[in-house]
Amino acid sequence: MRVNEMTDNARQSEASAWFESLRDQICAAFETLEDQYAETNGGAPGRFERTETRRAHPGDAEADQGGGVMSVMRGQVFEKVGVNVSTVYGRLSDQACRALTARKEIPGLAEDPRFWASGISLVAHLSNPRAPAAHMNTRFFWTPSASWFGGGGDLNPTLKAEDPAVAEDAAQFHAAFKAACDQHDPAYYPRFKTWADEYFMIRHWNEPRGAGGVFYDDLNSGDWAADFAFTQDVGRAFLTGYPPIVAKRMFEPFTEAERAHQLFRRGRYAEFNLVYDRGTRFGLETGHNPQAVLMSLPPVATWP
Amino acid sequence: MRVNEMTDNARQSEASAWFESLRDQICAAFETLEDQYAETNGGAPGRFERTETRRAHPGDAEADQGGGVMSVMRGQVFEKVGVNVSTVYGRLSDQACRALTARKEIPGLAEDPRFWASGISLVAHLSNPRAPAAHMNTRFFWTPSASWFGGGGDLNPTLKAEDPAVAEDAAQFHAAFKAACDQHDPAYYPRFKTWADEYFMIRHWNEPRGAGGVFYDDLNSGDWAADFAFTQDVGRAFLTGYPPIVAKRMFEPFTEAERAHQLFRRGRYAEFNLVYDRGTRFGLETGHNPQAVLMSLPPVATWP
Repeated sequence: MRVNEMTDNARQSEASAWFESLRDQICAAFETLEDQYAETNGGAPGRFERTETRRAHPGDAEADQGGGVMSVMRGQVFEKVGVNVSTVYGRLSDQACRALTARKEIPGLAEDPRFWASGISLVAHLSNPRAPAAHMNTRFFWTPSASWFGGGGDLNPTLKAEDPAVAEDAAQFHAAFKAACDQHDPAYYPRFKTWADEYFMIRHWNEPRGAGGVFYDDLNSGDWAADFAFTQDVGRAFLTGYPPIVAKRMFEPFTEAERAHQLFRRGRYAEFNLVYDRGTRFGLETGHNPQAVLMSLPPVATWP
Repeated sequence: MRVNEMTDNARQSEASAWFESLRDQICAAFETLEDQYAETNGGAPGRFERTETRRAHPGDAEADQGGGVMSVMRGQVFEKVGVNVSTVYGRLSDQACRALTARKEIPGLAEDPRFWASGISLVAHLSNPRAPAAHMNTRFFWTPSASWFGGGGDLNPTLKAEDPAVAEDAAQFHAAFKAACDQHDPAYYPRFKTWADEYFMIRHWNEPRGAGGVFYDDLNSGDWAADFAFTQDVGRAFLTGYPPIVAKRMFEPFTEAERAHQLFRRGRYAEFNLVYDRGTRFGLETGHNPQAVLMSLPPVATWP
């Protein structure tokens, strides 16, 4: 084992341990919201259930290729929330190599298509239409000659845009991510906010999926520790920024019309994820557990 | 105008007139089912509402590029059914040229990327989970150096597979298409049934979307009249084959568990259409009216 492979192994362990720790912290925060709701409104507070998944690469089903843990909660506040962590590795298929090479230059990938990837991915669909849905994902991707971080988070209000709660919640959500970004590089927030605006666009409707947030990919500044610290802070921004928004909205009374609009927005959310989302399409094409990949889909959606 | 262009124009007119006539016949048959249901159970029988759509090609929004008519009914029997006819024309985008060329050889398409396409597309989602959903589509596609028919239909039961109604309805649906195929070529039904089995596969779940049917594309036997007659008979097979299945099921009492399973199957249906369906993806990528392209999506679906 060469020195840099030792370093790489240590970094991989550190990254995947962080993603699991972040998962634990977020699940605890969400269960606390369930407790607070049940204390006031009765009923049973929701709890996460964990399921292990193994990755099965088509054509090489026998090999150990890693896997993950899905944590899903169907509670009173969270109608459906999934938090997946996964650490997968093996050899990229020709198709996946082509897709990556189309996006960025990775010297030697065709000759040595080994990869290792670890990350956390979260989607929360709330019961109360006045409480916005949200998504957060951060990951570390490694190949023998290149490695990078990616991730982000975006808020998906399910009220009509003119409701003052939409702008209020969006401002609060963005402020959390801006603060995290600004600690690392003043250029990060404007750049990654714009990237989110471009990425989370439902192109066939020419409309944004939600209120945006931040999105970044291919982050390798040359300073691994700094990039990792930034990725950790993006996760912490979600952990500290999103639950207070839910806490504020979860008790608000809502109308049938608001619930109907929420289900309509969820249909649009499903459209985005199935038609455009890079992680979803990559996951479906590369033999990831479909239950884990499609955890993001809403519990119920309408196309009225 | 050359002689063959006159012939082509006449064929185009004949094909699009047929698709509109078939639409009228199917809508009338479905409204009759609504009448029969309302006579017994009361309530207002559903009626189709028609909306014209224009095609807007990105980057060439001013040009006349055809359009279509969406007919949508939300009734008591048909929770949501859409029947679209469209006749669109213009120049294929580079992307669309590449997609077509990847599939079949069309000499000269890059130099003269004109196209003309007309078709009918139908998706029916039924209120009663014991009545299967269904899809039918036939079309004529023309370029200066090649033209072809395509289409098919498939049945999407929303009951669990072990319910005897599933096999019974599937047998009846397939028999109608087999009879239509056998009038033209004994090889058609086995070939087009297999094609449907392959096409209507939700690959990430490794499960069929439904009970299959027939699917064909690139049909050009060299005898335009024969191919057109076959395409007409596929439409007639649906017109005469599907409504009796609905008539048989629409009065049957059903359970909450059956309704829940129906909504779950509709989630899978939405997955297929958004991830794999060629017409949906082509439509979304080439600037068709998204309301018309996504008419196929279920009124309500769950990912439980």
